[in-house]
Amino acid sequence: MSSTSDKPGMEDGVHPFDVDTGVEAISEHRFTATTTDRWDALGGGANGGYLLAVALRALGEVMPLPDPVVVSAFFMRPGRHGPGEVEAEVVRAGRRLATGEAHLFQGDKEVVRLLATFADLGASEGRTLMLNEPPGLPPPEDSIDPLAGAPIPGLTIAERVDYRMAKSPGWSSGHPTGEGSNEFWMRFQGGREPDLLSLAFFVDAAAPAVLELGEVASTTVELSVHLRGHPAPGWLACRHSTRHVMGGFHEEDFEIWDSKGQLVAQSRQLALLP
Amino acid sequence: MSSTSDKPGMEDGVHPFDVDTGVEAISEHRFTATTTDRWDALGGGANGGYLLAVALRALGEVMPLPDPVVVSAFFMRPGRHGPGEVEAEVVRAGRRLATGEAHLFQGDKEVVRLLATFADLGASEGRTLMLNEPPGLPPPEDSIDPLAGAPIPGLTIAERVDYRMAKSPGWSSGHPTGEGSNEFWMRFQGGREPDLLSLAFFVDAAAPAVLELGEVASTTVELSVHLRGHPAPGWLACRHSTRHVMGGFHEEDFEIWDSKGQLVAQSRQLALLP
Repeated sequence: MSSTSDKPGMEDGVHPFDVDTGVEAISEHRFTATTTDRWDALGGGANGGYLLAVALRALGEVMPLPDPVVVSAFFMRPGRHGPGEVEAEVVRAGRRLATGEAHLFQGDKEVVRLLATFADLGASEGRTLMLNEPPGLPPPEDSIDPLAGAPIPGLTIAERVDYRMAKSPGWSSGHPTGEGSNEFWMRFQGGREPDLLSLAFFVDAAAPAVLELGEVASTTVELSVHLRGHPAPGWLACRHSTRHVMGGFHEEDFEIWDSKGQLVAQSRQLALLP
Repeated sequence: MSSTSDKPGMEDGVHPFDVDTGVEAISEHRFTATTTDRWDALGGGANGGYLLAVALRALGEVMPLPDPVVVSAFFMRPGRHGPGEVEAEVVRAGRRLATGEAHLFQGDKEVVRLLATFADLGASEGRTLMLNEPPGLPPPEDSIDPLAGAPIPGLTIAERVDYRMAKSPGWSSGHPTGEGSNEFWMRFQGGREPDLLSLAFFVDAAAPAVLELGEVASTTVELSVHLRGHPAPGWLACRHSTRHVMGGFHEEDFEIWDSKGQLVAQSRQLALLP
């Protein structure tokens, strides 16, 4: 277990994301997993998308098809750091689709429960039709690092993920734009390229869109992710938005487009304001 | 059990939706349910939203809080008509939120598995902020019934739900618009007003948006529904869209606004083309 916030990069050739989502089978349907403090989000505690990735990786070990295409995770308790276990089982295995369920436990308490359907995206066929455009961002090299001038203490996820934006978000200087949306680039530090598992992490790895509406924090209740294609190597172009805040709840929609301009992930979450 | 496609309206004062989603406890966590042929969708078979509503109603019987706020249902086999059972259990009960799981079985096969979080929307507090507009529809009385001239055989759901649109959808006359979106009104026939349970049905009760992209059918893999408020009585203004078709999969987004102009439900599904 490595729980220190050390320098990003490879460890014995393995990227921290792969180290920290690693699972080890202790029986046919049970895995050990160690959650580190290297993926903490705003407000402290392990990021929800990271916990989702740990549980989804264990589920992938038991599924008969390779690629998660839709995941819905329910977050029931704050994530901790340290040892945990994942129970994972196949619920239904068909020819084209297989559905499974996974539970992540920490200290005997269930933290995340998810359902997911897997397929083989390499074998999927059909036309591609996009009635939507990738984010209209300047190239990463002409963009700014929004955290460069003012790193946020405890936000360890930002020590392993690079962010680039056309300009600093309004909320970061105390002037929320009121628009509830932003576009930005993301990628892992250390050169690890994106894959389906990491897309399910990235959709929850940015500061919440609701910060541009003047809120200061948000807790995910449920996060649904559609994984639409294997991402090409390179930067990920992202767009997120919150359009409806009511009774303490809000949604956040998130899109990720790869370096070839293909939509590769789409997510929506329901979240609770403090 | 009533499985005939008879006249819509009340049965002993109970609306067919309430009759056909009815569940009866046979033990603390197990319920019987009878799926009728009165909610069949395009292509035959019980509509996914109807099956979701049956499972969610059983789950509501065991949950310690009254209102589902987010539901994610995975559809694993085509829905049948006839007797079935629902297993429902509380996974985590907190003060503000409680999460549960339900499985709908038909003929010993699991057809739908869902997770849902419940809250008390009556006790929820906070500002309302909408960065979105309700559908721009003419009033229902100035709209057309898109099915009036050409009822679709086997589409029994249309014998219990009223639809109104500004004009007939392009696909219905063999000329898909290519826009992948539509706006329309919906309500139950027979005067039953909407509630949270029926909103979770209505988000899947319209012809798929992908028909306007030239497709002829679509099968739901997963459906996530956010229930944002108790709907006011009256017609429901709806908007749906599909923007990304890739490798045989597509998403569909759906919004429902009540007669007071409030967003009351929002859903997204991942679906598979035949």
